Amino acid sequence: MTAVAIPGELGSFSHTAALAAHGPEIHLVPCVDFPELFRTVTEGKAEHGVVPIENSLAGSIHENYDLLRTHSLCVVGETEIRVRHCLIVRPATTLEQVRRVASHPVALAQCRRFFAAHPTMTAVPAYDTAGSVRDLMNDRVAADAAIASDLAARLYGGSVLQEGLEDDPANFTRFLLVSRHPAPARPDATSKTSLVVSLANVPGSLHRALGSFARRGLDLSKIESRPIPGRPWEYVFYLDVLGDPVEIEAALTELRADTGAADSVRLLGTYAATGTIRRANRADSAFAGRPLGDP
Amino acid sequence: MTAVAIPGELGSFSHTAALAAHGPEIHLVPCVDFPELFRTVTEGKAEHGVVPIENSLAGSIHENYDLLRTHSLCVVGETEIRVRHCLIVRPATTLEQVRRVASHPVALAQCRRFFAAHPTMTAVPAYDTAGSVRDLMNDRVAADAAIASDLAARLYGGSVLQEGLEDDPANFTRFLLVSRHPAPARPDATSKTSLVVSLANVPGSLHRALGSFARRGLDLSKIESRPIPGRPWEYVFYLDVLGDPVEIEAALTELRADTGAADSVRLLGTYAATGTIRRANRADSAFAGRPLGDP
Repeated sequence: MTAVAIPGELGSFSHTAALAAHGPEIHLVPCVDFPELFRTVTEGKAEHGVVPIENSLAGSIHENYDLLRTHSLCVVGETEIRVRHCLIVRPATTLEQVRRVASHPVALAQCRRFFAAHPTMTAVPAYDTAGSVRDLMNDRVAADAAIASDLAARLYGGSVLQEGLEDDPANFTRFLLVSRHPAPARPDATSKTSLVVSLANVPGSLHRALGSFARRGLDLSKIESRPIPGRPWEYVFYLDVLGDPVEIEAALTELRADTGAADSVRLLGTYAATGTIRRANRADSAFAGRPLGDP
Repeated sequence: MTAVAIPGELGSFSHTAALAAHGPEIHLVPCVDFPELFRTVTEGKAEHGVVPIENSLAGSIHENYDLLRTHSLCVVGETEIRVRHCLIVRPATTLEQVRRVASHPVALAQCRRFFAAHPTMTAVPAYDTAGSVRDLMNDRVAADAAIASDLAARLYGGSVLQEGLEDDPANFTRFLLVSRHPAPARPDATSKTSLVVSLANVPGSLHRALGSFARRGLDLSKIESRPIPGRPWEYVFYLDVLGDPVEIEAALTELRADTGAADSVRLLGTYAATGTIRRANRADSAFAGRPLGDP
């Protein structure tokens, strides 16, 4: 069985993503936080890791962009899941009794309307969605309820009082699959390639860097900038480029040779994009509760 | 006296930034969170607002980028301060007695090495740095210490046990100054102009949009992307462009006319950049403890 590291506890949305990406025949390695996950895969204690990188409402998970830069793992795939938050309680608790609701801060932030509609409830930040359900059931958290997936409720014996707490049903999280070794080469126009680029410190360098891709008609599906520690107001850029890896390689050769554009370019990986559902209306109820990208 | 809204309590780093930007003759309006700050300025209950937008270590404060988009305030200035975290206790407490340390999650994240060196201490997330000092002094938080500015310690009567808790001394926060009315026009090449751009959904549109600025030699000091709620994996881009506003206006006219580049362009404001310290080594001790950009 493949060992797959996930952040957080069994029952987390990362667990759902691991099942969607690798199927049920996996041995899960829960990690207490993202740095531990990167360490676990780097040290070979797990063959793969599942890394949440972006939520369609909350945006990027910046800590993981930073960890991609500071570790030498390869991105070998991606998967998306619909995030459906449940209010989970101990079996005897009623909605009226709920005062303190524990969950991960990102999950809490995605349920702002629920909290606005229930002003007597307080959001209690916790380190993990599923972990707060487990702690709730073991009386190890000062809360009456937790927000997590229905998988977490089933795993730990909690009762789901209410489903779909999220403000917006178009709530998806995209996960990267990381490994010590790159994915097999796939000369396919539906590939996605992830890069980290440090730009030259001259006006127009970003435009110049993007030109290498634009001239080849390669689409940029994502650009993310992150600060460089110790160099205030300077940034590295993370690019996701869609298209034929052969064309992308040509663009990278050009980019590496152009010292007026980029200082350094690192290839994180080339892998199959979950492109089929891009630009589709994924709030569509047909998708509800079902992992996307791995039908 | 000018009324200036700040997020969090008196003694916060935003308070320091308000003093740096507007001088001591101001009436401060503390706001419980960022949405309340935007409401307070929008409704005219304060003439200005001080909005933390970016930290040189933790990166952008994305909620405030979102609030700039969903409100119609103008950006009229910016200021930077050096963030120097202090461990603040009730006067009788010794370092050995400190078990639980309360502060804003961003401040806690900036002191990871301090917590690693003190494994018996637990970080307790709170809504505000200075607020956690005030709550500590009033026995209203389950903690023995708080992490905040020395201004907060002085205001609330706390004792500073240790200074410079931050992992990296090159720790600066940049604040935007917002108002209902734009700043007076200033035809000056050291101006900064902030924009929100929604790109056309075609390959290469970002490269094409940036071309309008690059061809005029205008430097991009910041690009930030944020998700569009309800449109998974589509983004708006926030651009900060340095240079003569007349040149920037010409670039915007070109950009608005090019439907292959941008769907919509909104000018947030043109204002004096704190450009003098860009690219300087601001970890330099000469700057320590002194607001930057407003000498």
